[in-house]
Amino acid sequence: MVLIKIDRQSNTPVFQQIIQQIIEFIENVSLKVGDNLPSTRILADRLGVDRTTVYRAYLELTALGYIESSPGSYTRVRKRPPVIRKNQVAAESILHWSDISNPESAELFRHFLHFWPENSPGIPGDLINLSPLDLDERIFPTTEFRRCLNQVLVNIGSKLLKYGEHQGYLPLREDIARRLQVHGISTSAGEILITNGAQHAIDLILSLLGKPGDRVAIESPTYANVIPLMRFHRLKLMEIPMGPDGMDLEYLTRQIRNKPLLFVYTIPNFQNPTGITTHQTHREELLSICEKHHIPLVEDGFEEEMKYYGKVVLPIKSMDKNHVVIYLGTFSKVLFPGVRIGWIAADQECIRRLSAIKRFTDLTGSGVLQAAVSAFLRNGYYDLHLKKMHRTFRKRMSVALKSLQEYMPHNVSWTRPDGGYTIWGTLKKEYSGEQNFKNILLKNGVLVSPGLYYFFSSNQNKYFRISISSLNEEEIRQGMFRLGKAIRELNGQKK
Amino acid sequence: MVLIKIDRQSNTPVFQQIIQQIIEFIENVSLKVGDNLPSTRILADRLGVDRTTVYRAYLELTALGYIESSPGSYTRVRKRPPVIRKNQVAAESILHWSDISNPESAELFRHFLHFWPENSPGIPGDLINLSPLDLDERIFPTTEFRRCLNQVLVNIGSKLLKYGEHQGYLPLREDIARRLQVHGISTSAGEILITNGAQHAIDLILSLLGKPGDRVAIESPTYANVIPLMRFHRLKLMEIPMGPDGMDLEYLTRQIRNKPLLFVYTIPNFQNPTGITTHQTHREELLSICEKHHIPLVEDGFEEEMKYYGKVVLPIKSMDKNHVVIYLGTFSKVLFPGVRIGWIAADQECIRRLSAIKRFTDLTGSGVLQAAVSAFLRNGYYDLHLKKMHRTFRKRMSVALKSLQEYMPHNVSWTRPDGGYTIWGTLKKEYSGEQNFKNILLKNGVLVSPGLYYFFSSNQNKYFRISISSLNEEEIRQGMFRLGKAIRELNGQKK
Repeated sequence: MVLIKIDRQSNTPVFQQIIQQIIEFIENVSLKVGDNLPSTRILADRLGVDRTTVYRAYLELTALGYIESSPGSYTRVRKRPPVIRKNQVAAESILHWSDISNPESAELFRHFLHFWPENSPGIPGDLINLSPLDLDERIFPTTEFRRCLNQVLVNIGSKLLKYGEHQGYLPLREDIARRLQVHGISTSAGEILITNGAQHAIDLILSLLGKPGDRVAIESPTYANVIPLMRFHRLKLMEIPMGPDGMDLEYLTRQIRNKPLLFVYTIPNFQNPTGITTHQTHREELLSICEKHHIPLVEDGFEEEMKYYGKVVLPIKSMDKNHVVIYLGTFSKVLFPGVRIGWIAADQECIRRLSAIKRFTDLTGSGVLQAAVSAFLRNGYYDLHLKKMHRTFRKRMSVALKSLQEYMPHNVSWTRPDGGYTIWGTLKKEYSGEQNFKNILLKNGVLVSPGLYYFFSSNQNKYFRISISSLNEEEIRQGMFRLGKAIRELNGQKK
Repeated sequence: MVLIKIDRQSNTPVFQQIIQQIIEFIENVSLKVGDNLPSTRILADRLGVDRTTVYRAYLELTALGYIESSPGSYTRVRKRPPVIRKNQVAAESILHWSDISNPESAELFRHFLHFWPENSPGIPGDLINLSPLDLDERIFPTTEFRRCLNQVLVNIGSKLLKYGEHQGYLPLREDIARRLQVHGISTSAGEILITNGAQHAIDLILSLLGKPGDRVAIESPTYANVIPLMRFHRLKLMEIPMGPDGMDLEYLTRQIRNKPLLFVYTIPNFQNPTGITTHQTHREELLSICEKHHIPLVEDGFEEEMKYYGKVVLPIKSMDKNHVVIYLGTFSKVLFPGVRIGWIAADQECIRRLSAIKRFTDLTGSGVLQAAVSAFLRNGYYDLHLKKMHRTFRKRMSVALKSLQEYMPHNVSWTRPDGGYTIWGTLKKEYSGEQNFKNILLKNGVLVSPGLYYFFSSNQNKYFRISISSLNEEEIRQGMFRLGKAIRELNGQKK
């Protein structure tokens, strides 16, 4: 029998010492397959430790597959299947993932590698990042949300942790329907599907409708993440140029006359990236084009509630008598993205079909997060938070616009959004290459998103998007100062 | 000027009374577009209420779009865009969703309507439901989990509520890697992608690899939800018959020789639905077939940790020297599904490509839930809970098997699983139709899942799946008693 030694001065608990030494004996074959181990009583006596200590070690060793026991017989060293160790694993797969991936996922992967300049080396420590559309966490109502999580887990309890409804937690769907009514949208819980954020909502719509080779109309520029996603769904992108009041509707009409369209995708409020809000008449006209040609209109209302300047313009969905609008929203841009809750409001038949896709692709969302957000709304925290967001970002946007005025050289123009977080900047002339632009920005301790992220085919290096979503007033002012310096440097380069 | 009346006895708060009456005046045109409203000071004086009460009402009315104000001028009734009311909305969409959906989503929708017998009418109140694979919430460690949620929200705080890493919260990926090492799998956080549950993991793998018309090998019968999902990805299903020790490997080899396969999908432990666990030699052989033919092997380890009888058999991934195994796991079947956390462990290059798809289809998972589960593991709650689950379900499964012995008529046989929750029952002869079987079950106050859910092409009405996952010992005993009665009634019918 092998000898186990217990070191009582060690920081390692006694049962762990027993485990480690027995594993060593087995691995250096001092103990062989089939060898008996002493009973827990005998080993405990011999080591002068409590019997439960030995028992605990044996339990763990059994779980790890080193020993086995059966009623009425000794505990034995068991035959272990050939487990491989890290150093036995080949460095690379014998499969070539790039070859066996389908062409669409391969294209998506190239997009993935191209995005994320933030992760690249050479980022200065005090960078002011005007690039991401991720909210400033210093403003999150985290304490109130934590209160809501506790409230629902105590009051409703464990059943929130089961699989929930595919369509989403009913009380939250009711809450969302009520909020949408404030924006003039006549809907009900049955016409709403809760998704894992707005991006997921778009993916579901594409999964429902998209046939390989179909044409989709998008604004140009548009939300950067939607371009690779639509390509991934094997669709052709029909880019409709953005004018100062939204997409060019004459151009859209001509496109529809040429060939059928699968759907039109639009962001009517503080469009991402341009910040443009379309007028009532533009909205009515776009809707009537879609109605006339029987084309679904996907309205992305991702920042619907973040209007803090000017008069109310109601969503297109509020005029949707004929159920052609598929409306989507999210809590990510007003509350926080970490709850992963967005929604689709559409014709009930459409919602049922989208729910089927949700059901078979990821079963359900998280009931506990959905219930907590519902409590957050019902406790009145949401209304208070929304007012705070309006107050805060009205000020921040005003600082941003004033600082642009102050610091930008004359060859730059920019949009003046009615809400949200993004401003679209335009240079009179193209700058020479995305990488060069980025390098000069980083040298000046600031970053914006290059315009080309937001176009599919066109590739003019004269645009950039500023996002103020994660910065406070002083950071915004400082960021604009640095951006001004960077662009002046870029101008100098050209001469 | 119109007259507002305040009823101080009413349950409706004063500011709400003001809102309601002003809306009424606007809607019955007592107040017209452009009409001035009294200042908050004057109206407050006139009504004998606090000025902030009136201010609050005006704020709300502005948000609702009924009134508007600009600095230095009166608050006025504003021109409202043509909002539609519920009764103006057409009953049906002018779009035919069944026509504009792609054929794959239309097929998925038919599956969706076919599942969910639980939702149908005529379910008795005291039904014992042996159908769903959803855990018994009475055993959930909800209090400990709530403690973990509080812990991470207090200690780590708001940044958990931002967008997280696409690949998933790093500490949790490290925890998962450590747990997999217990099962002999040599992996690291970089080789793990966190998903919204195991179903989502399968969807991502299909999105990465699937090309329309590709053939995939599945066990027959197999996990019901995977069949419609693979069809949705436009794949052809090659059903490999299950024998008593897993899928027929000779049959598989013949299939591979005939035509190339995209991948093989297998559930080696307590297979869903049969409950069969494959032996070490079967696992080695399956792996070597895949290695030889350079075919990815998707190993679904969804109940890896729920082995509570017999000897340890390590996952195929533990022998995967050549990185051909794409392994998937989940917390849904041991902790609870409500966290929506599953994972894929695979070759790093494969994981990066899957992360790209995750990034563009739903951005990120919930950082707060992932951090809470990580705390749950690190606090030691998980190990304690796992032991409790083993103790509990070892007993429940033993009750289930004893009760089957006691109550089943002679024409029924069933499997004896080493873990998990499902037992596969087989009748000697086919029963006449799914609906008839279901009616007899419901009449006897019990439900199981009909076998045909688990097959793609074959359609023999002689199988059924029993799941004990949501029931306690007494309920299981009673359920089996009723099932026995129902099957005897079914037998009687045939004579």
